[in-house]
Parts: sequence; C-alpha cells; structure tokens
Amino acid sequence: MNPENNTSHAGEWMRGSGPDSDIVISSRIRFARNLANHRFVTRADRSELAEVQSKVREAIVKAGVCEDMVYYDLETATAVDKLYLVERHLISKEHGEGDEPRGVAVGKDEVVSIMVNEEDHLRIQVLKSGMQLTETWAHINEVDDRIEEHVEFAFSSKFGYLTACPTNVGTGLRVSVMLHLPALEWTKQLEKVFHAVAKLNLAVRGLYGEGTQALGDFYQISNQVTLGKTETEIVQNVSAVIPQIIQYERKVRETLLVENKQTLEDRVWRAFGMLSTARTITSQETMDLLSNIRMGVNLGIIDTLEMSTVNELFILTQPAHLQKLKGRTLPNTERDVERASFIRQRLEEG
Amino acid sequence: MNPENNTSHAGEWMRGSGPDSDIVISSRIRFARNLANHRFVTRADRSELAEVQSKVREAIVKAGVCEDMVYYDLETATAVDKLYLVERHLISKEHGEGDEPRGVAVGKDEVVSIMVNEEDHLRIQVLKSGMQLTETWAHINEVDDRIEEHVEFAFSSKFGYLTACPTNVGTGLRVSVMLHLPALEWTKQLEKVFHAVAKLNLAVRGLYGEGTQALGDFYQISNQVTLGKTETEIVQNVSAVIPQIIQYERKVRETLLVENKQTLEDRVWRAFGMLSTARTITSQETMDLLSNIRMGVNLGIIDTLEMSTVNELFILTQPAHLQKLKGRTLPNTERDVERASFIRQRLEEG
Repeated sequence: MNPENNTSHAGEWMRGSGPDSDIVISSRIRFARNLANHRFVTRADRSELAEVQSKVREAIVKAGVCEDMVYYDLETATAVDKLYLVERHLISKEHGEGDEPRGVAVGKDEVVSIMVNEEDHLRIQVLKSGMQLTETWAHINEVDDRIEEHVEFAFSSKFGYLTACPTNVGTGLRVSVMLHLPALEWTKQLEKVFHAVAKLNLAVRGLYGEGTQALGDFYQISNQVTLGKTETEIVQNVSAVIPQIIQYERKVRETLLVENKQTLEDRVWRAFGMLSTARTITSQETMDLLSNIRMGVNLGIIDTLEMSTVNELFILTQPAHLQKLKGRTLPNTERDVERASFIRQRLEEG
Repeated sequence: MNPENNTSHAGEWMRGSGPDSDIVISSRIRFARNLANHRFVTRADRSELAEVQSKVREAIVKAGVCEDMVYYDLETATAVDKLYLVERHLISKEHGEGDEPRGVAVGKDEVVSIMVNEEDHLRIQVLKSGMQLTETWAHINEVDDRIEEHVEFAFSSKFGYLTACPTNVGTGLRVSVMLHLPALEWTKQLEKVFHAVAKLNLAVRGLYGEGTQALGDFYQISNQVTLGKTETEIVQNVSAVIPQIIQYERKVRETLLVENKQTLEDRVWRAFGMLSTARTITSQETMDLLSNIRMGVNLGIIDTLEMSTVNELFILTQPAHLQKLKGRTLPNTERDVERASFIRQRLEEG
C-alpha cells in the first residue's frame, strides 16, 4: 500500500463535484459474481480460494479494467490498512476481517474496485461522485463484460447469476445512492422519507452500508430485491425515487433559510467555530459538525471554505486515515487530539 | 440617566485589575442604615418616604461622599433602566420593583453607591475590584462617618444600628466577596467548599445575591450574622476564609493543566469558538462560555484577549445593557441575535 499518496488525495467521489452534489454524495453500483466450477467462498478451502484469487487477478489484468489498477492483499494487510480501505468504501468491514486468501483491486481515482473473495468471488464496484447512476451503470457493465471475456461466471438460465447469498441471486446487483440529508434529519422528517422508500422495496442504510449507523446525516438508499426484476428495472427504480428526496431536502433547506435563518446560520457557524477551535474531538462529533458545515457551504452561509475540503475532511478524519497521516498507530485519546489539530489546520487553509 | 456613557465603560470592579483577580471578581461591603425619628420603609407612607429620600440626598451631597455623584430616581426610571442598574450591582432587584419614592446615588467608577428606601432608608455600598476587603472596609467607614455628620441614624445602645429586618440588626453589615470558581465547579468540588463555608456561618449566593442562581461559575461568599459580633470580627471572618478558597481553586486549575491539559484547553477554546461564531445566544449560555474563557485567559491558554474585555462582556451582554447599547427595547429572540453579534465584534477586537 502507498498510504501517503492515498491520504493526500481523495477518491473521485469524495471531491463532491458530480451532479446534485449538494445532496448526493455518490452513486454506486456493484455486481456480485462467482467463478463457474468453483465452490462459493463459504464452502471453498484455502487452496481453492487462493486459486480463485489468482484467476480473478489475472482476469482483471488481462481485461485492462482501468488505469493504474493496484491490488491490495488483505491477508498480509495490517488492521489499520484494512480499516483505511473500509473508510474509503473500497472493502466491507467483513472483507477486512477474514483470514482466507482475499484482496481488493482498486483502479485510478477509486472509481472501479473489485473485492475478491468477500461473500462472493468478485464484488465489482463502480463509485462516482454525485447523481450519476446512468453513467455508473454504463461503466460497470463495461467492466463486467471485459472481465467476463477472461473468466466464466456461475450463471443459471433459470435464476441468473448465482451468488453465495440468495438475496443477491439473479442480477447480483446492488444500486445505492449516498445522500446527505441534514435538513430532513433536523426537522425530523426522515421517518416519512424512509417509510415511502420502504414501500418501494428500497432499503435505507448508514454510512458504511448494511447494519451501520447513520453518521453525519448520510444515508444510503439502495435496492433490496435482485431476483425477478431486470437490471434496468432495478436501476430505474432507484433512479426514480432519488430526485424526489433531493427536492424534499432542498425545499426544507430553503424553508429553513427563510423561516429559521438565524437558527440555521447559528447551527452552521457554531459547527465551524467548534471544529476551528476544538483541541480534542471524536470521529462521531466530527461527522456531525461537518454535516452542518457541508450544508452551510452549499447554502452559501459559509463562503470561505471549498466543498472539496469539507468532503475530504469527512474521510481524512476517520481513525485509520488519521493514523496513516501521522504514520503510526495512535491510542484513542491521542487520536482525538491529532484529529482536532488536523481539522484546525485544514480549516485555516480553507 | 446617561446610559451611553455608562455602557461604554465599566465600573471599577469590572476591569478585574484588583489583587487575586484571577479568582476574586470583587470585594463588597454594605451598611444598612435608617434615619432616626422616621418609620422604616415598610411602615412609612409615600410622603414620609419622599421626606426621607430628600434628607438622605441632601446629606450625601453635603457629605461630599465622592466625585461625580449621580442620583437615579427609580420612581421615574424605565424597566430597562432599572434592570440595567441591577445588572451593574448598583441596586437590588427588589429595589427596582417598588413604586414608592426611592432611588440610588452612584459615585465615580461605581465604587460607592447608596440605595435610598430599599429595605432600609440607606444601603451604603462600596464595591472594589479583586480581593480588597481591608481597603473596602476603610472606604465604607469613611463614607458612613461623613454621612453621619449630616443625618442622625437610628441606633440603640443595646442592639446597635436598627434595621428593618432583624437579620441585619447590630452592625447592619454585609461583607461579600464574589469569586469565580470554574475549576471547582467542573471537578464537582464546590459542595465541599460550600459545606466548609456554611460551618463558619457564611452564606453562598449566586451572581445577583440572595436567592439568585449561580451563573458563569460566580459565587458570592458573605456573612450571615450581624448581631453579637463586632464589625471587625465579621470582616476578619470573611477575610480569613477567602484565601483558602482561592488557593483551592488555583490548585485545581494547576492540576487540570497538568493532568487534563487537552481537555481543559479543549473546553476553553471551544467556548471561544462558539462565542466567536454563534448567531444567536442566550444570556445564560453566554455566561457559561465566558466563564471558561475567563479561566483560559487567566491560565494563559488564550493570550489574544484582554481580561478587561472578558469581564466587560459579562456585564455588557446582559439583557438591559444590550438594549441600552442598541438604544431600544428588543424582544427575546432579537436580543439573542444582537447579543451574538455584539460578542463576535468584541472578540474580534480582542
């Protein structure tokens, strides 16, 4: 790994330059794929997993999936390195935890990444900034097709792509959009949104996916069902609901700006004040304060700060990133002090 | 009243330049006195109260108590004007509330003030910055003697000075020292102090005296008993205990600086950050944050701010002061916004 390079610049999606990036952080699609003639990850022994990994790596290279592809071997990676990849949304927490042969291939700007031997042999991911589901969809299909030229995927004419978990069978597709919804959260209107979303068979998850907590008012909306629908239907289903949530969040922000201007500005500026002065701060509090600042920058309340700085701070202040920046493992208390110091410095630079 | 002049500069005690001013805000002594051959305030009718007021005012002028003495007639004063005098510790809340002939004489720098027709005909007060009980004691005796040359006080050879409330009979003396005890408050050691203080027959009160809440970690320590002790004993009694409390607070601050440096600095700087950025803030929150800043300036954690600025902010952000500064009455919400704006401006000036 080359942490210094990676911490100093962020993935494409972190720059927050995509469409509707005031509210949509990222568009993400992943395919679950397995090699034909190999047992699923849960059933295979070490040697078979090693063989799968080797075949997949070879296919990725041959396929020329994208520029500057780097492979991180998770068997030999340290705990901090693995957490670092989780924080960048390149591997799942579970993927970091196993001790079987496994890894992740990451392309330029972290747009394309492929987890190897997570729950499935391959978890292909394309992650783009802002609302770009159509582009993400086109991109991942290209990646998938290229890889399929070099390996045979497990496929049933009856069920579609076969996956380790039945919930993924069929298209093996998960479409998710990460939204920043501070105004809906603040005005307690999120429940309403989530209720409507659930009726459409979509799931709401926290920042780091399934079973994780909502942090910094970030929510992922994604499809639940993969079987019995075409891939296009699934993508369209998610694509159709997101603009409504965007409009809702924007409307509430505008109403707040008119009817609660002072309170809104107060909330935003105090968050800025605290992050600019704190001498020790947890990751959780950082996310919550950055969330208010992000909204403030989007609404023009704060105009001395680049959105890219705010977006990067969300990632760079996470525990593993911070430790990589400092070049050593830090106990909790020391980490909170280093985090506060790092944030002050970044905010001063604007 | 000449509010513009008064709000732009603070009373002598507010400058916080006296001895031990890191912890002792002010030393205050007051005498309760009544004119002989007149009924007490509670028993007298309007015309007698008017007569008392007139005699006292005349005596004050003749006595030449101090320079630039100004008399505020509380019968004609507005609610904001009266609250303003309360906030400057020149009258009691009760004194502001009655509708009988009454007022207050205030000398240069607000060191000497004399409430007329409060609970007693005269409440003579001398208020100095920091720990100056000896000087305050000498000063008030001089003022008292001078006035007594021009009026006869109600005095019994058996009981001493006669007062409207039996708790003041005897010397009519109250000695109080206002302390700033944020470290003892933070480490929850105040109870211990107050317990020890109570054993010495001393009382602990909040910022605005009897029955008021503790605000901004300010506490007044004062004598309870006036009867059966000489004036000197009372002053010595209070004088003896204060240095111990000062030492205790200082020791705890030093321990915090060594053992909880980051947490202490964090608390101080965040308070500064919030006051520097808030767009709306209550008086209560302002006091609490200023309290941390005051400690921070005293400990050298913040070195860009004058102590006099901090001390003045405590007073100038109070509701009546703020309204006088703005030259008009402000409803609550608007006041909180103006307060935040005023504080930001002052902190920028340092």
